[in-house]
Amino acid sequence: MWKPERNSKKALYEQIADHLEQRISYGEFPPGSLLPSERKLAEQFEVNRSTVISAFAELRSLGIIESRTGSGTRVSTSKWGATPKHTPNWSRFAEGGNFLPNLPFLRRIREALGQDPSLIDFASGELSGDLAPTDEIAALMSRNAYTSYLGYDNPQGFTPLREALVQYLSNYRRIQATESSILITSGSQQSLFLITQCLLSPGDAVAIEDPSYCYSLPMFQSAGLRLFRLPVDNHGIQPEDIRVLYKKHRIKMVFLNPNYQNPTGTVLSVERRKRLLDIICELGLPVVEDDPYSLTSYEGVPPLPLKSMDTTGSILYIGSFSKIAASGLRIGWMVAPRSIVERLTDARQQMDFGLSIIPQQIAAQFLQSSYFGPHLESLRIQLQFKRDLLIESLEKELSGLIEYAAPEGGLHFWCKLIPDIPDAKLLEESIKQGIIFVPGSVYGSDSGYVRFTFARSKPEDIELGIAKFAKAIRRLME
Amino acid sequence: MWKPERNSKKALYEQIADHLEQRISYGEFPPGSLLPSERKLAEQFEVNRSTVISAFAELRSLGIIESRTGSGTRVSTSKWGATPKHTPNWSRFAEGGNFLPNLPFLRRIREALGQDPSLIDFASGELSGDLAPTDEIAALMSRNAYTSYLGYDNPQGFTPLREALVQYLSNYRRIQATESSILITSGSQQSLFLITQCLLSPGDAVAIEDPSYCYSLPMFQSAGLRLFRLPVDNHGIQPEDIRVLYKKHRIKMVFLNPNYQNPTGTVLSVERRKRLLDIICELGLPVVEDDPYSLTSYEGVPPLPLKSMDTTGSILYIGSFSKIAASGLRIGWMVAPRSIVERLTDARQQMDFGLSIIPQQIAAQFLQSSYFGPHLESLRIQLQFKRDLLIESLEKELSGLIEYAAPEGGLHFWCKLIPDIPDAKLLEESIKQGIIFVPGSVYGSDSGYVRFTFARSKPEDIELGIAKFAKAIRRLME
Repeated sequence: MWKPERNSKKALYEQIADHLEQRISYGEFPPGSLLPSERKLAEQFEVNRSTVISAFAELRSLGIIESRTGSGTRVSTSKWGATPKHTPNWSRFAEGGNFLPNLPFLRRIREALGQDPSLIDFASGELSGDLAPTDEIAALMSRNAYTSYLGYDNPQGFTPLREALVQYLSNYRRIQATESSILITSGSQQSLFLITQCLLSPGDAVAIEDPSYCYSLPMFQSAGLRLFRLPVDNHGIQPEDIRVLYKKHRIKMVFLNPNYQNPTGTVLSVERRKRLLDIICELGLPVVEDDPYSLTSYEGVPPLPLKSMDTTGSILYIGSFSKIAASGLRIGWMVAPRSIVERLTDARQQMDFGLSIIPQQIAAQFLQSSYFGPHLESLRIQLQFKRDLLIESLEKELSGLIEYAAPEGGLHFWCKLIPDIPDAKLLEESIKQGIIFVPGSVYGSDSGYVRFTFARSKPEDIELGIAKFAKAIRRLME
Repeated sequence: MWKPERNSKKALYEQIADHLEQRISYGEFPPGSLLPSERKLAEQFEVNRSTVISAFAELRSLGIIESRTGSGTRVSTSKWGATPKHTPNWSRFAEGGNFLPNLPFLRRIREALGQDPSLIDFASGELSGDLAPTDEIAALMSRNAYTSYLGYDNPQGFTPLREALVQYLSNYRRIQATESSILITSGSQQSLFLITQCLLSPGDAVAIEDPSYCYSLPMFQSAGLRLFRLPVDNHGIQPEDIRVLYKKHRIKMVFLNPNYQNPTGTVLSVERRKRLLDIICELGLPVVEDDPYSLTSYEGVPPLPLKSMDTTGSILYIGSFSKIAASGLRIGWMVAPRSIVERLTDARQQMDFGLSIIPQQIAAQFLQSSYFGPHLESLRIQLQFKRDLLIESLEKELSGLIEYAAPEGGLHFWCKLIPDIPDAKLLEESIKQGIIFVPGSVYGSDSGYVRFTFARSKPEDIELGIAKFAKAIRRLME
């Protein structure tokens, strides 16, 4: 992102005025559109707010922008001379459309991370660079550079990857599948998007866990779905709650993340799994099982998916490389009945024409390489190490002020704060202190919960981050 | 795709019965679901229909499937013993959802291409392998294997690619942009998907060319948009038609492909461009300009985009690598006002969490490499050669039976058939003869038009393909 040149002979405010004039003339800020606030631009350009105020004054004197008290600074519409020229009302278009924007907390988190790369990141739900198999992937790439035809791929996904996944699913997840029942997606996110857009209709009722990652996704609301909650305790959801929701609201589908649930880290108990399968089978109710975390089991004994026990074909199974290899590959998969695979393949074709073959080829090679097993082994050890470091830091800094159950797998740590601090205040103060996390209410919980992703930070930053977080809490408790 | 082993000691029908039993037991065909027809399976497995009939008989005798006259063959529901177990009604889910399936002709084309890879393909709108820079990309990959962090990328797209595109847009398209006004997408398809989903609301009226690629995309109907047509003649659309549609239907947006339009190959004349820009400016009406083909100009003088003349920020500009480099990279871009870029970035994040960094890095390297210019040069020469070959073959085989205007750029050839043959009959007979194309009605034209994509076939197949097509026509004229 552009920043003014501190060593230039040209004053900072002049550089900023020139830069903004250029972006305005290119159409990035069309006539009539709102410019970012002085505060926001000052943050972006890393200058004092007074410098941005001077730049704005300069542009105002040239007739390029106009400020009105209370309604911000806009690009002039009169600048174009005598003939009135009209620019589309872009901001109205930006506010239009069926599709809802992300939750305000999530947009705030992205904005903060974009503006300050030095923030200690307990928010992004992904692995740190050293946990991802970057060297292994680089080695595979340089050894097997892509040489075959780079055209539109099989719309269901690169066939060798689907074949490799048949082996993977059988060996690691005890799921029997054929390549024709697998759809490759751009991660679990796209699997969920396809299901909510194409298999359900506006007004349909669905059940999700409470708290739940699904709750953080406006895609459910965008599709017009009515969400009902299944409370999660230390052993997951209560299967009987599904029957209650079915009778009361005719729920059409259940979304579950039974292993190291996001955000709570809980594992659905074996006994509840059996009852769950009996109930959904009795009701003829489909379950979407999201299973991104199982192989991170710190003890090395990954819990099996529900799908491995599914004898009636009631479960749509979703998997991904994002949490066990690299989110930047953007590779996920779905195992589903043929009719569903065909429908979703057809729809995805219209949305993005499928995924690039290159990451799919790399993923297939990685799965079949001798790197895969040892990578998982070392990932588990390092995740456990980071979890322990997080707990140690929390106990040191916030003993008595928090409650939690330590997860046995996954990337996240769910934690209740005993002091009564509103989510928004805690998030802003933490950003000020230099750390960022996801407030629990994003996942539908009450205020006062926090999700820390410990996988994303370097070990040395975990202790530091929690110290900063504790400082934010102490400030707000004063 | 699985096929029975011809040299096995096990009979073909037994192999097929075992294979189907396995897929049924894995849940790909759940209890109660419909199996593909005997005819379809016979085609897939490359066996006689009688062999599939024997396999079905075997499975029926085991109680695994049930056939009822007129309603096809289904997986048994009674197989599960005394306790009734219910499987979700998957086919009802597959038929649900807001999102409409692809047009029947397009599904038929995909099915035919999937079943018979020897078909001469005049349907897929992409380059052949020898026209794509496969070797160059392989060289870049092995030289610069990806080594940095493989995490979630900047949701707006890989920054070095956006920076490379700023140069590309300025040098090749005379568009001035900054990296902050560019959104990287999974090709033009995703750009259009984002625009129709997020900037427009159900009931909104939009204008598209007639015929138009947009017409082939049920995404417009899925978003609840009302489509109005702008007829295309040899010089593109008539700008005044936009004013008429605006007055009559309050159209909210116009979708245009001014250079080597898909499917007609026409270029919007310079004089009409000026009037178009005056009119949209007067009406404050936004235009989406899709510009995938310009750089294929056979004479080497690519027509400039409307966007290069857009002084009021009225145009959302869409570009892509699919038609000038490789569709398998799945890289496209949009240049838009900041408010639109922010809105669409946020929405895309929810749909698929962004693109893999790897193909974005490759695209950035390719754009900045010394390969790019010579690649374009050779692409143009070879496309012109293929177009000439197609015209020669058509003149030889179908002289007097067709009408066309030879395109000066692009991958497609649009052609009117003088004999009156229904589209569906012609497509089926052509598939039988071993060639496939897209019927014009897919793009909203009357019956009797054909789109041949000549870029996809090997030169030696163009002559052969047209001979087969002529044979189909002669059969149907008898």
